[in-house]
Amino acid sequence: MKILGIDPGLDRTGWAVLEKGGQGGAARLLASGLIHTSKSLALEKRLDAIYDRLVSVIAANTPCVAAIEEVFFSKRADTQANTTHARGVILLACEKQSLPISAYNPREIKKTVSGNGAADKVQMQKIVQIILGLKEIPKPDDVADAMAAALCHLRLAPLRLAMKNATKRLQIKGNCPGSRFSGSTVGRENI
Amino acid sequence: MKILGIDPGLDRTGWAVLEKGGQGGAARLLASGLIHTSKSLALEKRLDAIYDRLVSVIAANTPCVAAIEEVFFSKRADTQANTTHARGVILLACEKQSLPISAYNPREIKKTVSGNGAADKVQMQKIVQIILGLKEIPKPDDVADAMAAALCHLRLAPLRLAMKNATKRLQIKGNCPGSRFSGSTVGRENI
Repeated sequence: MKILGIDPGLDRTGWAVLEKGGQGGAARLLASGLIHTSKSLALEKRLDAIYDRLVSVIAANTPCVAAIEEVFFSKRADTQANTTHARGVILLACEKQSLPISAYNPREIKKTVSGNGAADKVQMQKIVQIILGLKEIPKPDDVADAMAAALCHLRLAPLRLAMKNATKRLQIKGNCPGSRFSGSTVGRENI
Repeated sequence: MKILGIDPGLDRTGWAVLEKGGQGGAARLLASGLIHTSKSLALEKRLDAIYDRLVSVIAANTPCVAAIEEVFFSKRADTQANTTHARGVILLACEKQSLPISAYNPREIKKTVSGNGAADKVQMQKIVQIILGLKEIPKPDDVADAMAAALCHLRLAPLRLAMKNATKRLQIKGNCPGSRFSGSTVGRENI
């Protein structure tokens, strides 16, 4: 099972491919990298470069799922807008390559991987280094964050699947009238 | 000269193609439409649908430039994030089709088209109707906003070009040392 972790950003998008199945079912790092785009380019050209590079990364590494950080709500509106534009084309690149996506918010990733939702960047880098048995601290932090997103998915995906199946059973039974579990969640298709 | 105006949104993206060159150089509407995606679909599937539909719109209408609204900073963070994700794939669709992009903020569009940067939706719809000589008020307002973006470009593009040329002349002369006009504005290419 290969997981592509992604930490989206317009200046820097970190990515990492992990595989589960090492000794004792441990995760190991297969590949990682940073997609950097220059501030001197127009927004659309930077988005195009991120999209193309990510498509190449997916083709070269053949992951079976992508774990992507949600956008952190920044006080700086321009930073947040840049990251969200980039995340749009990242999601599209995965979808075009038929790669299923799981999204996790930064706090959820920190809490799941380190046990502390407010862990700082250095703590996260050190913990990721230990879990993956890396010789050096993963740098820059965008790449370490991508590894953490993939590790988070490895831990949470089985729980999410169990929750989904439990919800499905409740829906079939229809034993929660008026609750969010009652009836079908599938709406109209208007595309 | 055909202009594609776009009002980005995840639920609804309005688009309109205008042509300049009617009687007295007036703009006329060639085509318009709404790309609607269902809330019941996953974000990546909605982005994929917007991208594909917009690529089809560009191929069918062969515009020579796109005028796209910038994201309006909403108090609702989720709405703003949705619109920005959509805008990311819209910019990518234009770039992949080699369509140059001009971006305008909503206030700039209102001010340029109606003379009032705080014009409401109904005022804008009525003004767009009059300028384009439409029999009926353009609806929904996402489509009217796309028409307004294209009209804004028609008025502002010649001014922007004149400003750009003036800046270029100042740069060549190098007569503004230390100012934003001194030296080259082309930075390093790091993609």
